[in-house]
Amino acid sequence: MLNSKPPEGSIRTIRIDIQYEGTNYVGWQRQPDGVSVQKLVEEAMSKIADEKVDVVGTSRTDSGVHARQQVASFCLKKKGPSPYGFMRGANTLLPSDIRVVRAEEMDLSFLARRDAKEKTYRYYIQMGPEPLVFLRNFSWHIREPLDLDRMRRATSDLLGTHDFSSFRSASAQTRTSERTIFQAEWKIGEFEMLYFEITANGFLKQMVRTIVGTLVEVGEGKRAPEEMKTILEAKNRTTAGLTAPPHGLFLWRVTF
Amino acid sequence: MLNSKPPEGSIRTIRIDIQYEGTNYVGWQRQPDGVSVQKLVEEAMSKIADEKVDVVGTSRTDSGVHARQQVASFCLKKKGPSPYGFMRGANTLLPSDIRVVRAEEMDLSFLARRDAKEKTYRYYIQMGPEPLVFLRNFSWHIREPLDLDRMRRATSDLLGTHDFSSFRSASAQTRTSERTIFQAEWKIGEFEMLYFEITANGFLKQMVRTIVGTLVEVGEGKRAPEEMKTILEAKNRTTAGLTAPPHGLFLWRVTF
Repeated sequence: MLNSKPPEGSIRTIRIDIQYEGTNYVGWQRQPDGVSVQKLVEEAMSKIADEKVDVVGTSRTDSGVHARQQVASFCLKKKGPSPYGFMRGANTLLPSDIRVVRAEEMDLSFLARRDAKEKTYRYYIQMGPEPLVFLRNFSWHIREPLDLDRMRRATSDLLGTHDFSSFRSASAQTRTSERTIFQAEWKIGEFEMLYFEITANGFLKQMVRTIVGTLVEVGEGKRAPEEMKTILEAKNRTTAGLTAPPHGLFLWRVTF
Repeated sequence: MLNSKPPEGSIRTIRIDIQYEGTNYVGWQRQPDGVSVQKLVEEAMSKIADEKVDVVGTSRTDSGVHARQQVASFCLKKKGPSPYGFMRGANTLLPSDIRVVRAEEMDLSFLARRDAKEKTYRYYIQMGPEPLVFLRNFSWHIREPLDLDRMRRATSDLLGTHDFSSFRSASAQTRTSERTIFQAEWKIGEFEMLYFEITANGFLKQMVRTIVGTLVEVGEGKRAPEEMKTILEAKNRTTAGLTAPPHGLFLWRVTF
């Protein structure tokens, strides 16, 4: 079970919303090697609080993955500054590719990772022969045209509650591989980029990237749209397609 | 006068269109210190051509300024590969923030810098309290709301042929400071960014950035829209506003 109680002696819980470009980090989660976003945020908050704090985020984004809205929380045993003080202080200590965009005093029992009800990810694709160089760290460039109708038909079979074992990293271990997808659609967005937006009650490791990689194979004509059902039923990672690269992916929104 | 003849012994002229993110460069133009885009492109083309080539661009973008379409040309004394060969070769030699997006065989007499008829720049601004971290190197963040009506009224006085001495860098030296602005407008674009698009037959040093900085002061209510006329008439840099930061500016299009 997730740690559901604040550490002994805690008197406050702060929620922070964080935006980051993942290009230069090993991901959200602390790693034995390399610089993670969590590590830098924890160091900043510990310095401001004048005590060691543990910052727990809702989502362990992979290396290269971005966040438009990551939500995290931490507990305090000392009085410490106001939420606004944490936000302002953190933004002077953190590098410019990580920003705290909101801070809020919560009930002591709040835990961002446990209390998140829905998460939305977006995956951006630049199609065609002339990708914009400015978007290279924020999108997957695919030269060949994709058949959006086929991709949309395949996407519809993912909606609802399923065992997503076929779409998770082979190395992943979680208690259950059942998740509920509330919404999933392909749209044309800014700078004519194609993007995939997906909302669920939670995601398995590399689930969005594997879904996107498989749907792109459908769009390229390498797989039939009807295959999504059989892939889900197989509950076996080898039946799905490639894992889309991390730099097109954004943790877009977390709902409580 | 601009060098109007190809160097002695030249047998070919190649036009290349280049896209770059300016964040990590001292600008387009070669400098005594620091890495310029021109230097890297010249080194790549010289290696591919197997002879020393001089690559001349249409616009000397400043440090931090980006290009969606910079156009340059170079002459060859040896046979060398096809235009496509130059493009493909350059894109393997150049870093990922500089891309050659087009290459074309031209008349020997073509010179990109001289033959450009119109240039268009765009300047992007993120307004409001919550800028996107992903756009930090590609836009100017202004927290206070800007009055777009005032800015548009002030902009209209810039159209046509004027002496733009008041809007050029004090250090600049060119033969004439008269330029003709064909189009200049403020629009809302991607990711709800405000942008300024301006097309002219040419621009003085830091002219777009000084125009944008001055128009922003109009939008903030620090100057009256009617001041643009008196600033133009003064022909004195100190009458205009601040120079907007370079990272919001893009050389957007060059027309021949």
